Order: sequence, then structure tokens, then C-alpha cells
Amino acid sequence: MLPMFSGKLCQCLSVTRFPSILFLGVIYVAYVLVGGLIFWKLEGCSCITNKYSLLAITVLKMIKAASLSGLSPDSNDTADGFWKFTSSSVFAATVVTTIGYGNIIPLTTAGQIFCVLFALFGIPLNVVILNRVGKYMLAIERNFSLKMMWWVLTFLYFVVPMLLFKEYEGWSYAEAIYYCFITLSTIGFGDYVADHNPAINYPEWYSCLMAAWIFFGLAWLALLINHSIDLLESVNAYMRRRKNAQTQV
Amino acid sequence: MLPMFSGKLCQCLSVTRFPSILFLGVIYVAYVLVGGLIFWKLEGCSCITNKYSLLAITVLKMIKAASLSGLSPDSNDTADGFWKFTSSSVFAATVVTTIGYGNIIPLTTAGQIFCVLFALFGIPLNVVILNRVGKYMLAIERNFSLKMMWWVLTFLYFVVPMLLFKEYEGWSYAEAIYYCFITLSTIGFGDYVADHNPAINYPEWYSCLMAAWIFFGLAWLALLINHSIDLLESVNAYMRRRKNAQTQV
Ligand SMILES: [K+]
Ligand SMILES: [K+]
Repeated sequence: MLPMFSGKLCQCLSVTRFPSILFLGVIYVAYVLVGGLIFWKLEGCSCITNKYSLLAITVLKMIKAASLSGLSPDSNDTADGFWKFTSSSVFAATVVTTIGYGNIIPLTTAGQIFCVLFALFGIPLNVVILNRVGKYMLAIERNFSLKMMWWVLTFLYFVVPMLLFKEYEGWSYAEAIYYCFITLSTIGFGDYVADHNPAINYPEWYSCLMAAWIFFGLAWLALLINHSIDLLESVNAYMRRRKNAQTQV
Repeated sequence: MLPMFSGKLCQCLSVTRFPSILFLGVIYVAYVLVGGLIFWKLEGCSCITNKYSLLAITVLKMIKAASLSGLSPDSNDTADGFWKFTSSSVFAATVVTTIGYGNIIPLTTAGQIFCVLFALFGIPLNVVILNRVGKYMLAIERNFSLKMMWWVLTFLYFVVPMLLFKEYEGWSYAEAIYYCFITLSTIGFGDYVADHNPAINYPEWYSCLMAAWIFFGLAWLALLINHSIDLLESVNAYMRRRKNAQTQV
């Protein structure tokens, strides 16, 4: 069994294939960064770019009108703070992965229209890349050990991030596991977002680790969901065969 | 060409297959409704269940403290208003479809843990159902006309909803098309959510139409994205073949 899978792995990781995934990877990163750049240019000048700050500023204006105190929210601060190039790139990444936390959103019509066009080509590109990475992971997984690898991956994608989020974000274990699952399943409610609390000083490696975790985690969870689908489909096929057999008798 | 596709359609819509999709559909609807019921029971007693109302109540408390006026936000109103059974079912639907607008979110630990378990089985179920519906749509599409059908579907899934949203939600055309795409691509930022403005009296058929639009729209957009992936994969395969031919020469 092992030589067959080794052969498969060799075939999968062969040098002739390597430039193809590298090439796709470069296109993917370039696509997200260029998208980020365009979002930055389109949205950089709009004053309110975050739905929390949008609501907060609206209500703060109400406070001002109600209490006539000296409160004057400086909206330029939030504009510079949120639609920096990095934030725009993070936003672009939440679009192509379809996580869509919604903590950063385009407010200008140009930004919204560009968002539609950007997603139209970005989502398929993302799916192709994740499928490719998932195939590599499956090949590696099959070579090393069968069930052991699932535990290692669960540890890497859920236990390690859980401990990190408890440490750096101050979330409970339940909140951390909820955030991990909501993110990797691409539901992305946006009620918890890692690396996004302005009150916390994150270490420099934190953002890179988050990006790697989300990218490889998405590939892994897509694989897991594909396994579940195969299971459901085979249950369905089994039931249909059984039904056909009954009608023939 | 047509008889072949007619045969395919007959095969696809054959009576032996019909109970299978009906059976899956019943399981799907039951899964979402039971999930909604459990979320309702788990979250019904928690006072603040919506991140907007959470922020709004926090800031309203600030207003109260600042202006000492008679403002007293009655949080029980929002609890009853948002975590009704219908809202819980809508929430359950946003989980299994991975749209995850995030305008309704579980706040209790029990609700969050149940959300993870609910999504773990609900997302694969949703993918299986959408794939099945997508296959039916493809079979129907191939029978009637080739490119005409795409225009009809685009009209049904983008132009008609756009006009409806302009009429009932008061959005601009750009906002409506942005919402359509953000929803059907399952990005779901939650900055615009149809059928969710408490200030608007929606007609009774509106909710049903929204559910049907999202369900069939997701199946159709999944088909569209699969077409894009096939295109990208064939471009990739073509480039690899060309490269191999060059290395052989
Ligand atoms: K979302
Ligand atoms: K989403």
C-alpha cells in the first residue's frame, strides 16, 4: 500500500508540477495585494469605513446633539486607521476566501462595485488554490499515518490557535474554539476577529501566523467537508441501491 | 443533441430519483428548523443577542450617563424581538449556508458550542443539497437553450431582486447588486441584510421569496463558480501541456 501512495506523493509533488502551484500561489498573492491596493485607493478618502465606527459615530453625533457636550469624534483618525494598505489587503483576503467578517467594509459605490468584480474572479482562484493545497495535504497525510495525521492536524488547526487566542486575545476556550470554527468554515460572523483589537499590542509574527493558519486551515477543512460529503453521498447511494433492490424483488 | 439531453433530463428527473431529493430536502428543512428551535431555547433567555443592539445599548447607556436624560433602553424588547423562533431559524440558515451575516449571533457559551456542532453536519448537508439542485438546474438549462438560460437566470437572480430591494429596502441599484452578490457568493458581510429592517413593514410573501431566492441562487452561483474553476483548471492544464511539449523539444 505504501509504495503506491509514495508513488502518488512523488507524482503529486513532482518537480514538473511544482512551478504550477508556485505560479498559482504568486498569482493568488499578487491578486490579493493588487486588490488591496485598489480598495485602499477607492476607500482611502471615504471618512467612515467600518460599520462599528459608522454606528458609533452616528450615536456619538446623537450624544452631541442630546447633551451638547464637547464630544467631536475625529473621523479622519478612523479613516487612516482602518483603510491602510494592510487592512485593505486583509479585507481583500476576507473577500476571496468568502469569510467576510464584515468588520471592514467598502462604503463608496466604486468600492462596492469593485468588490463584486474582485470576488467574481477571486473566489474561483481561491477555490482552485485551496483544492490544490488540499490534494498535497491528502497525499502527505496518506503517506505518514492514517488516523494519526488527523489528530496532528486538529491539534495544529484548533488546539494551538485556541491556546494562542486565549493568551493574546483574552478569549475563553469556548470563545476561541468558536472563533476557530466560524473562521475556518468561512461562516465569519465577525463577532470575534483575531489580530484586530486596537487595545492589544500583538507580536510581529502574529499576523503572519494568522494568515498561514487561515490559509492551510481552509484547505484542511475543505478536505474534511469533502470527506463528509462523500460519506453523505455514499449513504444516499446505498439507500437508493437498497430501494432499487426492494422494487426488483 | 437535444434527444441526448432530454434523455439526461428524464434520467435526472426520473421518478426513482425524485424521492431521494425530496427526502434530502425534508431532512434539510427539518435540520434547519430543529436547529432554530434549539438556538431559540439556548439563546432565548440571554438579554442581548444582536451585536448592533449590543453596541447600541452600550452607547445608549453612555448617553444616559452623559446627558442624564430619561432614556432607558428596554433590553427585554430586543431579546424577544431578535431570538424569536423565526429569527433563530434564519440564523440557523445563515450558519449552514456559511453566509453568516453576523447580525444575529449566539452570545451564550452553550449557543456557541451548539453552533459549532450544528455547522459541522449542516454545512456538508447544505453542499450536498445545493449540488443536487445545481445538477437539476444544469439539466434543465441544457434542455431549453444554451446561452439564453444564463441570461434568464441572471435576470431572475440579480435583476428582479435588485428591483425588489430598491422598492422595499430603499437601497440604490449599486447597493442592491452589491447585496445580491455578497449574499449569493456567501461572503455575507452583514452591512446590508434584506428583510431585517424593523422600520419597514414587509409584505407577507417577502420572507418566502427571500428564502427561495437565496436557496436557488446559491445553487446557481455554485454552478457558475464551478464553471469558472473548470475554466481556470483547463487554462492551467493547457499551460502544463505546452510546457511539457517545450521540454520534450
Ligand atoms: K460573513
Ligand atoms: K461568510
